[in-house]
Amino acid sequence: MYPTLDDVQKADVSQLEEYAKMIRKRIIEVVSKNGGHLASNLGVVELTLALYKVFDPRKDVVIWDTSHQCYTHKLLTGRWDKFDTLRQFNGISGYLNPLEYEYDHFALGHAGTSIAMALGIEKALKLKKLNKNVVVVIGDGALSNGEVLESLNQLKAQKSKIKIILNDNGMSIAPNVGALSEAFMQLRTSQAYVKLKELIKAFLESSEAGKNLEDELRKFKNSLKAFVTGLDFFETLGIKHVGPVDGHDLKVLVKVFQRIKDYDYPVVVHVITQKGKGFKPAEENCVMFHSSPKFDPESGEPILKQGYLSFSDVFGQALVKIASQRQDVFAITAAMPDGTGLSHFAKAFPERFVDLGITEQSCVSFAAGLAKMGFKPVVAIYSTFLQRAYDQIVHDVALQNLDVLFAVDRAGLVGEDGPTHHGIFDIAFFKPIPGSKIFAPMNLKETVSILRSIFELNVKGVVAVRYPKESEEANFEQLWKESSIIDPFRWEIVRQGQSGVAILAVGTMVKNCLKLESIDPTVVYVRCVKPLDENLLKQLIQDHDSFVTVEEGVVTGGFGESVVSFLNSLGIRKPVLCLGLKEEFVPHGSREDLLKFCGLDVKGIFDNVISFMRKEVSTWS
Amino acid sequence: MYPTLDDVQKADVSQLEEYAKMIRKRIIEVVSKNGGHLASNLGVVELTLALYKVFDPRKDVVIWDTSHQCYTHKLLTGRWDKFDTLRQFNGISGYLNPLEYEYDHFALGHAGTSIAMALGIEKALKLKKLNKNVVVVIGDGALSNGEVLESLNQLKAQKSKIKIILNDNGMSIAPNVGALSEAFMQLRTSQAYVKLKELIKAFLESSEAGKNLEDELRKFKNSLKAFVTGLDFFETLGIKHVGPVDGHDLKVLVKVFQRIKDYDYPVVVHVITQKGKGFKPAEENCVMFHSSPKFDPESGEPILKQGYLSFSDVFGQALVKIASQRQDVFAITAAMPDGTGLSHFAKAFPERFVDLGITEQSCVSFAAGLAKMGFKPVVAIYSTFLQRAYDQIVHDVALQNLDVLFAVDRAGLVGEDGPTHHGIFDIAFFKPIPGSKIFAPMNLKETVSILRSIFELNVKGVVAVRYPKESEEANFEQLWKESSIIDPFRWEIVRQGQSGVAILAVGTMVKNCLKLESIDPTVVYVRCVKPLDENLLKQLIQDHDSFVTVEEGVVTGGFGESVVSFLNSLGIRKPVLCLGLKEEFVPHGSREDLLKFCGLDVKGIFDNVISFMRKEVSTWS
Repeated sequence: MYPTLDDVQKADVSQLEEYAKMIRKRIIEVVSKNGGHLASNLGVVELTLALYKVFDPRKDVVIWDTSHQCYTHKLLTGRWDKFDTLRQFNGISGYLNPLEYEYDHFALGHAGTSIAMALGIEKALKLKKLNKNVVVVIGDGALSNGEVLESLNQLKAQKSKIKIILNDNGMSIAPNVGALSEAFMQLRTSQAYVKLKELIKAFLESSEAGKNLEDELRKFKNSLKAFVTGLDFFETLGIKHVGPVDGHDLKVLVKVFQRIKDYDYPVVVHVITQKGKGFKPAEENCVMFHSSPKFDPESGEPILKQGYLSFSDVFGQALVKIASQRQDVFAITAAMPDGTGLSHFAKAFPERFVDLGITEQSCVSFAAGLAKMGFKPVVAIYSTFLQRAYDQIVHDVALQNLDVLFAVDRAGLVGEDGPTHHGIFDIAFFKPIPGSKIFAPMNLKETVSILRSIFELNVKGVVAVRYPKESEEANFEQLWKESSIIDPFRWEIVRQGQSGVAILAVGTMVKNCLKLESIDPTVVYVRCVKPLDENLLKQLIQDHDSFVTVEEGVVTGGFGESVVSFLNSLGIRKPVLCLGLKEEFVPHGSREDLLKFCGLDVKGIFDNVISFMRKEVSTWS
Repeated sequence: MYPTLDDVQKADVSQLEEYAKMIRKRIIEVVSKNGGHLASNLGVVELTLALYKVFDPRKDVVIWDTSHQCYTHKLLTGRWDKFDTLRQFNGISGYLNPLEYEYDHFALGHAGTSIAMALGIEKALKLKKLNKNVVVVIGDGALSNGEVLESLNQLKAQKSKIKIILNDNGMSIAPNVGALSEAFMQLRTSQAYVKLKELIKAFLESSEAGKNLEDELRKFKNSLKAFVTGLDFFETLGIKHVGPVDGHDLKVLVKVFQRIKDYDYPVVVHVITQKGKGFKPAEENCVMFHSSPKFDPESGEPILKQGYLSFSDVFGQALVKIASQRQDVFAITAAMPDGTGLSHFAKAFPERFVDLGITEQSCVSFAAGLAKMGFKPVVAIYSTFLQRAYDQIVHDVALQNLDVLFAVDRAGLVGEDGPTHHGIFDIAFFKPIPGSKIFAPMNLKETVSILRSIFELNVKGVVAVRYPKESEEANFEQLWKESSIIDPFRWEIVRQGQSGVAILAVGTMVKNCLKLESIDPTVVYVRCVKPLDENLLKQLIQDHDSFVTVEEGVVTGGFGESVVSFLNSLGIRKPVLCLGLKEEFVPHGSREDLLKFCGLDVKGIFDNVISFMRKEVSTWS
C-alpha cells in the first residue's frame, strides 16, 4: 500500500521516513524507465512529506514553482498507480496539471511565476474572506529570475503573509550564478551553517514557548553574519527569514513548518537539500540527472543511443570552431550551458562566455551591450523560454540596429516535457520584428553550414536559427568537414516532382515530406523562413498548380501565411495548404507520438495533401 | 552662449550653478511649447552637470535608463539650438538616439534594461582591454523592475565595476510601490537623512584622505539603520552603497562622483532629487508634468482641449461603472494608474486595484492567480510595454485556460514619444496565442460597448481590447447611456459602396476610410480582429471583387494576413491589399504626421487603393 495525503497527516516522523523510502524507490523505478526530472525530485521527498504533514494542499494553496519537482506531490495525491505512465502520451504529466488533479492549480513549467501568482491568489482569498495559507515552494535557482525578485519586492507592500519554502540545492539546472547564489553557497559550505543547523534543532527540541522562531534565532544569525554576506537580503525587503534548515531532517522540517504556519507576515524558510538525494549516481552527477534520460536503476548508467548527436551539441561544437577563428564571437546562456550545448564553448573560451542564470531578459540586453561594442553575441535559449525576452529582442536589439544571433533551441515539439516546453511560437514572434531573419536547418550538417555562413557573410540584425530537440547519427568532425559556406537565404529543391504540387518544408520537416513519393510532389527545403526566397518561389509558381507549406510551429502567424501573402501580393491565384500546429496547446508524449497527433508525421502530411489535392480539383480548377 | 561639455568640465561650482539656471530655462521654454517629460528632466539638471564634470560621456560610457530624463544631456551635447524641435517630426527625439549623437549609444524608452546593457558593454571593454568607466543613471522607480533586479544580482559575480547613479525622486511615474521604495521613502522623510546628508557634506569638505567613502561612512549609516530598514539591500548583493546625497547640491555631487570614479567594484550612489525642481507647478504636480502636455510657462496651466476625452479615460471610467455592478472585476496596472485611466478605478475600488510598479510580468501572473480564483482581472498596460509579459500571457493565462482581459492602451502610433513607445506589434503577438480574442473599438462609444459586452457575455480566455492614444469630444455619462450590449465578434458595414472594393478597417481606421467616398467603397468596421467575422466576410466575398485591409499595426503577422489566409482556405481567388505598418520602426512626431508618413491618412489610403484597383484590373481580371 502506498501513502496518501491522509496517511501523511496522521504519520509520525518515523512513519514519514518509511514513506520517504517508498517514494524514492517509486521515483527511481519509473524515471529509470521513462526519463524525467530525477535529481530535483529525489531532493524534495522529505520537504514535501513534512510540508503536507503540516499544510494540506486540499485546504491551503500550495504552488510549486516551475513544478518539475512535483513527483512526491503527485504520488501522494492519487497518482501512485498511474505514475508509470509519467511523461508518456496520454499518461501523467511531469509537471503540475490541474486536468489531472484539481489542487495542482496551474500547469507550470517556466521558473519564477509562482510568487506573483500566489499574490494574486492571496488577494482573491482576502476579497472572498477565505482564510487559507498560501505556500510557494521555489528553488534557489529561480531567485536569479527577475519576476521572482520583483514579486519579493511586492510582498510587504501587499501586506502578504505568503510562506515561501526556498528549496536551496545550489543549482538551477547548472550551478547557479549571481550574488545571492554566491551567498547561499558560502553558507552551505561554512562551519557556521553546521553550527546554526544544530542550534535550530536544539532550539526546536527544547522550547515551544516563543512563537517567533526567526526573532529568537536572530542572535544566532548575527554570529553567522560575520562569515556570510547576503543573508539579510530577504529582510531588507521586509520578509522574515528562517533557516537554513536541513531539508532531509523530517523532524526539524515538520517543526519549522508548524512554527511558521500561523505567521501573519511573509516568511522565507531556507531549506537546504541535496539534488539526487538517496541515489548515488544522481547525487554525484545532478546536472545529467536534472532532466534525465532513461537509465539503469542499479548502476545509474544512462541509456543513450551511441553515435548520435543532438542539434544542441552540434550547435555548441560548431560555435567553438567558429570562435576559434574569430575573436568577436561571444556566447550567452540563461542557466542552460549543458542543454544548449554551450558547455563546449564555456570550456574553450571562458572569457567569452556568460551564464546569467534564469534571466532571459538580461541575457538579451547584455547581448545588445556587446553588439554595440562590435562583438557578435550568440544568445542560446530554448524557444519557449525566449518568449520571456520578446520585448528586449524588439527594443534592445532590433530597434538599435544591432546584430545578435539567437540560437533557438528546442524549437517545435519537445516531447515529454509537454505544453510548457514546446517551442511553437518563435516563427510567429520573430517574423513581425523589422529586419529579422529566421533560419531552419534541415539536418545537423545544415546547422553547421548555416551557422558558419551567418558569420562569414555577416548577416545583420535579429537573426534566429531554430532547430528541434532531435538527434541524428553523426560525427562532428565529419559534419564540420562536409559543411560549407552557403547562401543561407536560398531555398533548395530537394525533389523535383511531376504532380504539380510543391511542398515547401521548413527545416527538419523536409525529412517526412521526402517520404511522399507516391504523390510525386516537388519538395523544397525552406532553409530560410524569413525572408522568403522570392526568386525560387516565383520559379516554382510558374510550373506548379498548388502549394503545401509544412512547419513545426503555429500556423497562425507562421511561415505558411507568409507564402499565402506573397502569392496574394503578386496577384497569383494558386491554392496553398498550410500545415503546422493548430490553435491549441499540444500535450506531452514522445516526439513521434506528438508529430502524429498534430498530423506532421508522414501519414498525417500524406492524408492532408491528398485531401487538399482532391478539394483543389473541385474548388479551384 | 550656451554651455557645452567642455565648458562643464572646466567650470567651477558657481559656474555650474549658472548653467543649471540656463538649462532649466531652456527646458521649460521648449517643453511648454512642445510637451515632454518636464518633471523628470528638471529633477536631474544638477545631477547631469556634476556627472559630466567628472565623467566625460565621450570617453566613459554613460547610459541613461529609460532616457526620458536626457534633456540636460542633449543640451550639453550639441542639441541646444535644435532643442526647440523636441519631439516634432524630423526634430530631435525626447529620448536618447544614437542617430542624433554617437554617445547616446542606444535609443531607449523601456525602463530597466540599462544595467544589463552596461554589463555587456563592460565585458566588451574588458575583452578589448579598453579602460573606461561605465556609468548608469537609473530612477528609483525602475528598481521595482525584474530586469534591474536580476542585473543587480549579477554585478558581483561578473566582477563588474559599474557605477550606478540611483536618481531617487520617489516616483516612477506614479508614486512607487514595493518594499525598496517604501524604505527609500522612509529614508527621505526621516530626520536621520537630514543628519546623514549633513555628515556627508562635512566629511567631504574636511577630509580628502580616505578613498573609500562608503567604508568611512559606515559608522554613520549604522546609526541610520535603527530608523530605516532596506538600506542594506545593495550590500546584500555585494554592491557598495554611497549616500543618500542631495541631488541639487552641485558641490557635494561633484565631490562624490570624483570619489567613486576610480573604485574597482560596483557602487550605487543614492542621489535624492525632486521631480520638477525649479518650476513650482511641476514640483507640485509631478504626475501631470511627467509626460506633460503643452502649458503656459508662467502659470503652468496645461493647454488642453476642453471637452475631450481620451480612450484611456473612457476605459477607466467605464470599468468603474462595470465594477460597481459586479464584485469580480479587479484592475491591475504597472506603474501607470493615470496613463491608463485606472486612477478612477483605484479611487472607487481601492481594495480591487493594485499597482505593482514597473513589473509587467508580475502583473500578468498576478492576474492569473486572481482568475484562477474566479475573478475577472483586467490588466491595463500600454501595447509596447505589454511585450514584456508575452511569456506570461502565453504560459500563465492562455495555457491555464484562464480569463484575463488586457486593456491594450497606446495601440498604434503614439506620436511624440516615438519608436520605443509605438504599439505596433500587439495584433501580431496576440494572434498566434491559442484561443485569444482581439477587439478594436472604432470610437469612444464602441470602447464602452465592447467592454460592457465582454463582461456581460463572459468572453473567455486571453482577451485583448486595443485602442489608440487619441481623444474625442465627448461626455462620459452620455457615452455610457448610448453604449449597449452588442455582439463584439460581429463586424459592421458602415458604408455600402458600388465600386466592388470592400475596405475592412480595424478600429479607429474606420474614420479615414469613410472619407474615401470618391472611390465609392464598401467600408466595414472590423470590431474584432480575431476571430474573423467569417459570416460577414463570406457575404462580402459574394458581392465584392477585391478587398483592402487597414490596420494601425505591422502588416506582417497582422489582421490583413488573417484575411488573406481565410480567403485562401476557402479557395477564393480575390485580391487583397493589406495596408498597415511596413517592416520598419516609425520615428516620432505628431500622430497626424506619422499616420501620413505611414500612408494611413486619408490621402495615403486613397492613393494606395487607387493604385491597387488599377493594378488589380491589369493583373487579376
